[in-house]
Amino acid sequence: MRAKTAFVFDLDGTLVDSVYQHVLAWQEALEQFGIRLSAWRIHRRVGMSGGLFVAALRREIGEPVSPEDAGRLQQLHAEGYLRRIGEVRALPGAKELLDALTRSGVPWAIATSAPRQSAAKGLEVLGVGEKATLITRQDVEHAKPDPDLFIAAAERLGIGVAHCVVVGDSVWDLLAARRAGALGVGLLSGGYGEDELIRAGSYRVYADPADLLEHLDEVGVRQAFDA
Amino acid sequence: MRAKTAFVFDLDGTLVDSVYQHVLAWQEALEQFGIRLSAWRIHRRVGMSGGLFVAALRREIGEPVSPEDAGRLQQLHAEGYLRRIGEVRALPGAKELLDALTRSGVPWAIATSAPRQSAAKGLEVLGVGEKATLITRQDVEHAKPDPDLFIAAAERLGIGVAHCVVVGDSVWDLLAARRAGALGVGLLSGGYGEDELIRAGSYRVYADPADLLEHLDEVGVRQAFDA
Repeated sequence: MRAKTAFVFDLDGTLVDSVYQHVLAWQEALEQFGIRLSAWRIHRRVGMSGGLFVAALRREIGEPVSPEDAGRLQQLHAEGYLRRIGEVRALPGAKELLDALTRSGVPWAIATSAPRQSAAKGLEVLGVGEKATLITRQDVEHAKPDPDLFIAAAERLGIGVAHCVVVGDSVWDLLAARRAGALGVGLLSGGYGEDELIRAGSYRVYADPADLLEHLDEVGVRQAFDA
Repeated sequence: MRAKTAFVFDLDGTLVDSVYQHVLAWQEALEQFGIRLSAWRIHRRVGMSGGLFVAALRREIGEPVSPEDAGRLQQLHAEGYLRRIGEVRALPGAKELLDALTRSGVPWAIATSAPRQSAAKGLEVLGVGEKATLITRQDVEHAKPDPDLFIAAAERLGIGVAHCVVVGDSVWDLLAARRAGALGVGLLSGGYGEDELIRAGSYRVYADPADLLEHLDEVGVRQAFDA
């Protein structure tokens, strides 16, 4: 019997076009704390766990952030993001890719470092609703680049994580995929450069979900086609 | 006599932290025309001439954009950007870098594909006011990646363009620098990946203006230090 494969997707920048809104929401939240951080530096941190983000901040601003401030920062960011959610759209081909996997009997899940409330809004934008298997920050002890989110997703799908294809737009996804023992595939749709994704261990890099859908054979999916 | 050197800077993403606002302003303008383009694809176009941007759009959306629509699009983008200008800040070290060059007797100019009104707002954010030598879209026939903007800046400074260091955050800056026969230096502060800038011909890549200021010796500047 052939080993079954499954897909685990990151959400922001991978299925929904929300990275630039996240960047500006973080920048606005930080500025309310008197911290000025350039947008590109925030961009390179989006998708990592909030705790690590705050640790990285310490290096950028030269002083520690208290747990209370860290919590408040994350809350301000979530509020700023939800205020911008009206601008957020699904990435090209995202829904079609998930539908094609479902039709072909390939299980899939979404695993995100985001808290459940922001993630739920992302699923609404995607239009996949409640049927999707969703793992968020609240379901694991450590978010990306720890492997916990992807391991939890594989368990929920009942597929060994070594047989999972993890699709993400950031180096944190690819590092977490590697640590989970899964195959990492990168998408440019979060705004990282191709080389950054390849150096982080991406087996292949595609432009966006539409491009991955066109090349599913390259990652080993035998598609079922509707008549 | 030693050949004199001069610096020509791009503005958005190089001296001011405005790329992410430009991306969302373009996205909003396009959507008003029923065109949905992913943020990362817009990001990779920011800094090129508006005419080329519209030509690239034709490929993305599969149909030509009329000159009237192109003009209206650019106007909507400019309005959307000016609405976001309150969020825009100078990049770390930008003002200090320009001051250090001035103190060291190194002429410098700013050359941008942006129209004069947006550029003037950027100079306000920078706090360099009217004293700066500024070349904008209106001063040349073709914007980046044509070399016209950088050649015009070198002429205005009275320095041969081959002796100019062109500093920019995008591949369009580096291509235009190469075509002008100037030395291109890349900054990561516009959100491109390092490898993209190196492949486009960047002699060196620095994080942001503060990082370039720390390494001015590497691009051949003998600094005068205040007592």
